[in-house]
Amino acid sequence: MALTRRRLLASAGLGAAGVGLGAGGYLIGHDAAEADAAASSGAVPFYGDHQAGIATPVQDRLFFAAFDLETESKAELRRLMEAWSSAAQEMTAGKMIGTYAGNRDELAPPADTGEAFGLAPANLTITFGFGPAIFERPGLGLAARRPAALRALPPLPGDELNELESGGDICVQACADDPQVVFHAVRNLARIGRGTVTMRWSQLGFGRTSSTSRGQETPRNLFGMKDGTANVKAEDGAAMERHVWVDEGPAWMHGGSYVVTRRIRMNLEVWDRSSLQDQERTIGRRKYSGAPLGEEGEFDPLPLAEKGEDGAPVIPADCHVRLASAAENDGVRILRRGYSFTDGVDESLGELEAGLFFIAFQRDPERQFVALQRKLGVHDALNEYIKHVGSAVFAVPGGVRPGGYVGEGLLG
Amino acid sequence: MALTRRRLLASAGLGAAGVGLGAGGYLIGHDAAEADAAASSGAVPFYGDHQAGIATPVQDRLFFAAFDLETESKAELRRLMEAWSSAAQEMTAGKMIGTYAGNRDELAPPADTGEAFGLAPANLTITFGFGPAIFERPGLGLAARRPAALRALPPLPGDELNELESGGDICVQACADDPQVVFHAVRNLARIGRGTVTMRWSQLGFGRTSSTSRGQETPRNLFGMKDGTANVKAEDGAAMERHVWVDEGPAWMHGGSYVVTRRIRMNLEVWDRSSLQDQERTIGRRKYSGAPLGEEGEFDPLPLAEKGEDGAPVIPADCHVRLASAAENDGVRILRRGYSFTDGVDESLGELEAGLFFIAFQRDPERQFVALQRKLGVHDALNEYIKHVGSAVFAVPGGVRPGGYVGEGLLG
Repeated sequence: MALTRRRLLASAGLGAAGVGLGAGGYLIGHDAAEADAAASSGAVPFYGDHQAGIATPVQDRLFFAAFDLETESKAELRRLMEAWSSAAQEMTAGKMIGTYAGNRDELAPPADTGEAFGLAPANLTITFGFGPAIFERPGLGLAARRPAALRALPPLPGDELNELESGGDICVQACADDPQVVFHAVRNLARIGRGTVTMRWSQLGFGRTSSTSRGQETPRNLFGMKDGTANVKAEDGAAMERHVWVDEGPAWMHGGSYVVTRRIRMNLEVWDRSSLQDQERTIGRRKYSGAPLGEEGEFDPLPLAEKGEDGAPVIPADCHVRLASAAENDGVRILRRGYSFTDGVDESLGELEAGLFFIAFQRDPERQFVALQRKLGVHDALNEYIKHVGSAVFAVPGGVRPGGYVGEGLLG
Repeated sequence: MALTRRRLLASAGLGAAGVGLGAGGYLIGHDAAEADAAASSGAVPFYGDHQAGIATPVQDRLFFAAFDLETESKAELRRLMEAWSSAAQEMTAGKMIGTYAGNRDELAPPADTGEAFGLAPANLTITFGFGPAIFERPGLGLAARRPAALRALPPLPGDELNELESGGDICVQACADDPQVVFHAVRNLARIGRGTVTMRWSQLGFGRTSSTSRGQETPRNLFGMKDGTANVKAEDGAAMERHVWVDEGPAWMHGGSYVVTRRIRMNLEVWDRSSLQDQERTIGRRKYSGAPLGEEGEFDPLPLAEKGEDGAPVIPADCHVRLASAAENDGVRILRRGYSFTDGVDESLGELEAGLFFIAFQRDPERQFVALQRKLGVHDALNEYIKHVGSAVFAVPGGVRPGGYVGEGLLG
């Protein structure tokens, strides 16, 4: 298909009117990458209407942890969230946890473990969420404040879940452009929580696999494909309101969101043995340009209705981008912030254990992620190459004002 | 102890003569960090007198893999090293593996898996080494070419080794400033080697824990301490010749080195509970400045002979920097290129499994690493907080000329 000027403009999201570069954002990939690098020492405010780490342009590195709560005391949970919020505010500002003296008293353990001392904050964000199980603990007395949208995910087609990599009572998502900064954040929160929470599972993500800002280039996942081209972008306020931010249910969730995580093991060896054509037809995009099949530009709309000379759809019926598209899902979209991971050699197979740690924010997991996965888990051609081995869902409360703490509206 | 001007100059490595900043390199930390960032899209030549990845200023990220050889055919091993060297040359230059056509034939699997397509080479180096066991395989016929210095490491005090994280016939060290680039490198080499080698173990390192160039700031390890201040620096040609580069034994090792890797699990919870004073006395340095105890500057010489008012040595007898110092080891030094790692939650303990993946290059493992570890493994105060769980040694052949391959002098 020929690349027309109109199509090029459309693909750039500029329409016929705005040819000025930068206006639409999509054409400034290279400059944006440089701007990103310049901003990598930046600090993202911890306080705001929403928790940071959702609409924040997705950072390069992740450390995610799920904790089990070891107490039935609401007061103890409140103290944990107060202490965690305070430490998160300090760390995201590039400060050490605790006072200066708290790290220099020679006869006491330092309040901060110190491995991020001297490093820039690197756009660190720390985002907290609560799992469905904490609302079922009689001692905590939170049952009446449970949002209807927060339920353990139902069994989904294709699930091969490992309990030890799933669930959890509280989640911590630390994202930054420096892996030492995210490791330090989760380690210190775990240390502060000792006695109140135990780490259940954690995941280091070495590279982002999506963009959440128009200024970011779309990265490649471990299948070598551009991933998340059609992701919700933070600049699209209407889409954020419609698909991501909660404004229903209990007040403590207003301005919040629900996060679903899925640990998706990718069978790299099988994928690597498939032809370029099979790979592209599985996804529905060209491997190198990221363009939809039959199109030229990464951001060209999916030609879902077009048929080739053989009468078959140009975008195959079972390919990933068609099945996941808003157009074929009643307009449903999710905000993805996933990361590639590797956990080394799977000794039983002698293969690299690697994949995608999928993270998606949304207003209603049942209507969004669950509905999508019910379809994808059955029909997606990609299922031949992937396996969902971990799963969790958490309610992510709204933002925090200076002096407040995450979950104040729930625990206060 | 007062910081005198003479001491300051000495600590900067400038002596009394050269006060011009930058001459000695140690004082330019901040500028050097910026220069590093600017160079992060650079390409490091694969060809040269030595393999890259030893004297190369240590990059931020690591993926290290050890492979078992599945063949007894020397010709097959030679073909592997030819193919690996060719692919390594392409990847380090920022190119895809194989020809353009090799990645665009729609009906064939792409020659390159593609996840680094569009990324800068990020100073990628790929360094190959041979383990002692390949010289014992009768079919390969290499026994007569085995260097005397290459022997499996003897049992060492404090070893708690796991066989599945130790040893291996061939090693691949991929270092770069982008983790996706190092993952891509090892994955593609494993793919090329399928049928000839099987991956035995691998290690992702998320942050460097040493400097190998005077222009680099000394990073912090997961104990929050500056690590590797006294490391051999690549600019010190005499030290490189004396401690790192091999010029004895079989010709194929000339210009090469021996690498020892140790997977060192760090007991972060116990460390975090110890006082600042205990931490500093365990290492022998101040936590925040990195200065030797009793001194002011990171690069001040260790005052090994000094005693405090209580008559005890200022640098404790059992602290790490004293026991590891060249001064107390007949001048023995090693070039360290280690990385911090985490492998998530240790389910048996509910603690973060994390630590140091120690990598050291040297001329003679027995006289250098083994001699040091025989002493450290018994006396080092640090042993309370660490555990050596993986171990390996490899002979790293000399450099490759254009058109040649790593190990040519051994296998040709």
